[in-house]
Amino acid sequence: MNETIRKQLEHRTIRAFTSQAIDDKILTLLEQVAQRAPSSTGMQSWSLIRIEDIQLREKLRDLAGQMYVSQVSALYVFVLDMHRHASIAAEKGAEFTGYEDYYSYHQAMLDTALAAQNMVVAAESLGLGTVYFGSMTIHAQEVATLLQLPDGTMPVVGLGLGWPAQEPQLKPRLPKEAQVFVDRYPKFGNYHQVLADYDAEMREYYDMRDLNRRVDSFTDQTVHRYSGSTLPASRNNLALLERQGFTWQRNE
Amino acid sequence: MNETIRKQLEHRTIRAFTSQAIDDKILTLLEQVAQRAPSSTGMQSWSLIRIEDIQLREKLRDLAGQMYVSQVSALYVFVLDMHRHASIAAEKGAEFTGYEDYYSYHQAMLDTALAAQNMVVAAESLGLGTVYFGSMTIHAQEVATLLQLPDGTMPVVGLGLGWPAQEPQLKPRLPKEAQVFVDRYPKFGNYHQVLADYDAEMREYYDMRDLNRRVDSFTDQTVHRYSGSTLPASRNNLALLERQGFTWQRNE
Repeated sequence: MNETIRKQLEHRTIRAFTSQAIDDKILTLLEQVAQRAPSSTGMQSWSLIRIEDIQLREKLRDLAGQMYVSQVSALYVFVLDMHRHASIAAEKGAEFTGYEDYYSYHQAMLDTALAAQNMVVAAESLGLGTVYFGSMTIHAQEVATLLQLPDGTMPVVGLGLGWPAQEPQLKPRLPKEAQVFVDRYPKFGNYHQVLADYDAEMREYYDMRDLNRRVDSFTDQTVHRYSGSTLPASRNNLALLERQGFTWQRNE
Repeated sequence: MNETIRKQLEHRTIRAFTSQAIDDKILTLLEQVAQRAPSSTGMQSWSLIRIEDIQLREKLRDLAGQMYVSQVSALYVFVLDMHRHASIAAEKGAEFTGYEDYYSYHQAMLDTALAAQNMVVAAESLGLGTVYFGSMTIHAQEVATLLQLPDGTMPVVGLGLGWPAQEPQLKPRLPKEAQVFVDRYPKFGNYHQVLADYDAEMREYYDMRDLNRRVDSFTDQTVHRYSGSTLPASRNNLALLERQGFTWQRNE
């Protein structure tokens, strides 16, 4: 155990921040850490957009539906980026087939996420609080329009940083036997049995964090999250992939 | 700057390892760090498979086409996992629409990658060397079969860990002005101009690392990577998505 790992094991999402700004030197350092993340065949298939314009922040806040999008000290959007590759190929007059296969898209998603988490670990090591805004990409089309994202790009996730003004308890995690396996994916007879203690822990966790919040077990949350039309706008992301120039989803 | 960030800025992929094993306690700790990574709405939509069986390792090595897959001390495959969610819903007799929308898949990819990078940062903080095996997922169907991956899962990336037996130089990164932006995605007139110094740096980098390697600028590497049929098997991953039960790619 060292200080890096100790901080990683203490990770919790922060949703309340002080008004203290983050020094520009720190942001520059964190951006550098993101750039240093591993990437598939060195292609670095992502870009990062720091949102400084107040009106833009407010629009993104409204899209994400989360007030604290505009309360963080620094706001970033991590963008999958194959536009750079396609442009380079076009300048050379070379063929570009990158948009046609799922594998290349998959690798670009991976690159983007690895860079984001590299930044998060670095930020937390400095005592900053972090919060991912996944909900921002429910409205990926609107985000793409606001940020003027060209062909070959897709918003992947938003990230807020700030000095924490809260100290939430650690959120319980799945029991290891339900998530970490050896050599093959095991067959589970009954997940409710495997997750019984975890379900109980989750009910307790929400209860303690905020008495006004719905108290739900993990298995109940799972059903709630993945049932019905809770995410109607999301269905349009496939159309957005097409508008952004990707064609792999058309391959047979 | 602290020790965490200093190590992150020193990241380089390691491809040669000593024969020294990694203590089980370290692996357990690293798995715990992976589990602690942030995840979308707490769903933790991934699983981790540690590959211990020697024959299985050799098969994965052959699929990845990289000798060092079988030379690492610990080998993991990170798997996108919505199978757990679907099974929980089925046990409750509840509707499950998670396979139908791209957004849910996107969030699960993100969860998986964040967990992987959390493990990488922790491993490197202990002095371990790390190497991602993206190429393993070119052959995602074969990997899925070998690891008995059920409906709702997809292999995302392999990860090798070991005590390093080499000290490669730092691999140059894109200039910040080509990757980190403010408020909107900028228009670039000519990428070759923006990347001229970087191209020169990359030619130098390969040159110094290994005289037998092809010396290529970044822009030349980009064209090479994304032109023609360098990844024929990848086109089948869309069919694999379907075999694994996902239907979002069929939505209009």
